[in-house]
Amino acid sequence: MEKKLAMVAFGGNALLRAGQKGTFREQLENVERTCENLLPLLKRGYDLVIGHGNGPQVGNGLLRQEAGRQVFGLEAMPMDFCGAETQGSIAYLIETALERVLRRAGVERRIVSLVTRVEVAADDPMFQHPTKPVGPYYPSAEGREGVFREDPQGRGWRKVVPSPQPVRIANIDLVGRLAREGSIVVTVGGGGIPVVRDADGHHGVEAVIDKDLASALAAVELRADEFYILTDVPKVYLHFRTPQERALDGMTLAEARQYLSEGMFTEGSMAPKVRAGIRFVEASGGQCVITEAGQLGDPSCGTRIIA
Amino acid sequence: MEKKLAMVAFGGNALLRAGQKGTFREQLENVERTCENLLPLLKRGYDLVIGHGNGPQVGNGLLRQEAGRQVFGLEAMPMDFCGAETQGSIAYLIETALERVLRRAGVERRIVSLVTRVEVAADDPMFQHPTKPVGPYYPSAEGREGVFREDPQGRGWRKVVPSPQPVRIANIDLVGRLAREGSIVVTVGGGGIPVVRDADGHHGVEAVIDKDLASALAAVELRADEFYILTDVPKVYLHFRTPQERALDGMTLAEARQYLSEGMFTEGSMAPKVRAGIRFVEASGGQCVITEAGQLGDPSCGTRIIA
Repeated sequence: MEKKLAMVAFGGNALLRAGQKGTFREQLENVERTCENLLPLLKRGYDLVIGHGNGPQVGNGLLRQEAGRQVFGLEAMPMDFCGAETQGSIAYLIETALERVLRRAGVERRIVSLVTRVEVAADDPMFQHPTKPVGPYYPSAEGREGVFREDPQGRGWRKVVPSPQPVRIANIDLVGRLAREGSIVVTVGGGGIPVVRDADGHHGVEAVIDKDLASALAAVELRADEFYILTDVPKVYLHFRTPQERALDGMTLAEARQYLSEGMFTEGSMAPKVRAGIRFVEASGGQCVITEAGQLGDPSCGTRIIA
Repeated sequence: MEKKLAMVAFGGNALLRAGQKGTFREQLENVERTCENLLPLLKRGYDLVIGHGNGPQVGNGLLRQEAGRQVFGLEAMPMDFCGAETQGSIAYLIETALERVLRRAGVERRIVSLVTRVEVAADDPMFQHPTKPVGPYYPSAEGREGVFREDPQGRGWRKVVPSPQPVRIANIDLVGRLAREGSIVVTVGGGGIPVVRDADGHHGVEAVIDKDLASALAAVELRADEFYILTDVPKVYLHFRTPQERALDGMTLAEARQYLSEGMFTEGSMAPKVRAGIRFVEASGGQCVITEAGQLGDPSCGTRIIA
């Protein structure tokens, strides 16, 4: 009997937490804690593929590009390049931390991290509506390339980039094969390096693919049995942080769509996770679980989205 | 009959050339030119694994860490982390450029890039003797942190860090399997992320593993038939850049060792390449070719080191 395969997506915040300085040691400890929480899945014998965010990391990367330009006159690299950098560095953190966790638990699994390009459509309507703020705040947007918005809190002008839909994940068939062999595979880091197909191949674009959507697509392509979206709360809530707050143990697809249309989930936070869960469940019939990493030891943890 | 497998190592300079500003476009064009030069190998049906350097890139990365600290108060990440970043970004450049080259040539090959840790020994004596130049050249080393050396070719002063021997390459068996299936695999970027084994797993160290030595080890482990070290001259020379200069078509292991012991090759430049070639040939019985990328169309190109 084929083992169950779980796709797990964890956020950039699982690596670099708000309020921390973001030292290497802090990030490594954060990743190690997250990886420890994956042990119950591994002990239940799941094959495992890991997707991860890079919000804080690519944010710092873009700041360093700007700082390098100012201080040393270095050419600033585009956002796709910075995203690729974070795939390397975060995979390194995950491999280091996960290896420790496995070793201590006596679990033998290979860990493989792939640099991963993810194709988006050149005509994705989101390219006309950049929404995702990235990089430093500037006193003015004058003379700068790209679309800039003024920060409502007066911190200055900030670049906004589009967040197009992931369409195709490079080498996802190989990821599946390696995972089914028992390797733990790290892929679609930061949602993947966004590329657009052209006559010759693919070229990078300045955009951010939502990492939960990219992981959902990966989970579909991998025919994952379960798709875990890790966040910093144990469950999905209705009327979150109000007196009417109610934790959800489960939602059908119809309920999830209904709640979304009622604006029940915060945009930029829970709403995209629920959308990613819906995407996976409707395309695959599998289960999506949205929960905190620390809850994975409980097989009935989190909020389950089911067909 | 199993196909021949070639391991090709190309330098960070194949990506970011001296005198260029180092824009993304420049780097991509440089990589594309280098990748075009690999076509003759592919057309002769070789399986192919690519190792690459990251000297200029990790140097810029380290500058950006310092600049980010100065301008935005960001925590500076250690060198192993910066090396991991360059594995992501350079692999992205190689995948993008190589895909174009293959597409235009009508060659169908999968390209897979692995984030790769390379183990070094904690007691490697090189940790006491930093020798490996990284980053840009400066007119003077005054006021800079770390150990600096003057470039033998007069290009200025450059930081040096320890360069321990590669001992074990993570996932090299998998690299071999993928390459034998026909995938072009990118690995040991920048010589690999240097890690030292400890009780729990491995931890990173601030060092640079010579990319030619790491690639040589990869070539041995992969049982490569041929190991190509790409550089910016067509051949290895005796009495380089003197009136007695003489190009070598080939060297036996004994000759190569002899020339090295006579100090015939420049340290930090040709000497480590010849050492890497020796390492491969003596361990494997295969051939090492040191040449310029543009020469690969000629099957008798470069300088051959043979048993």
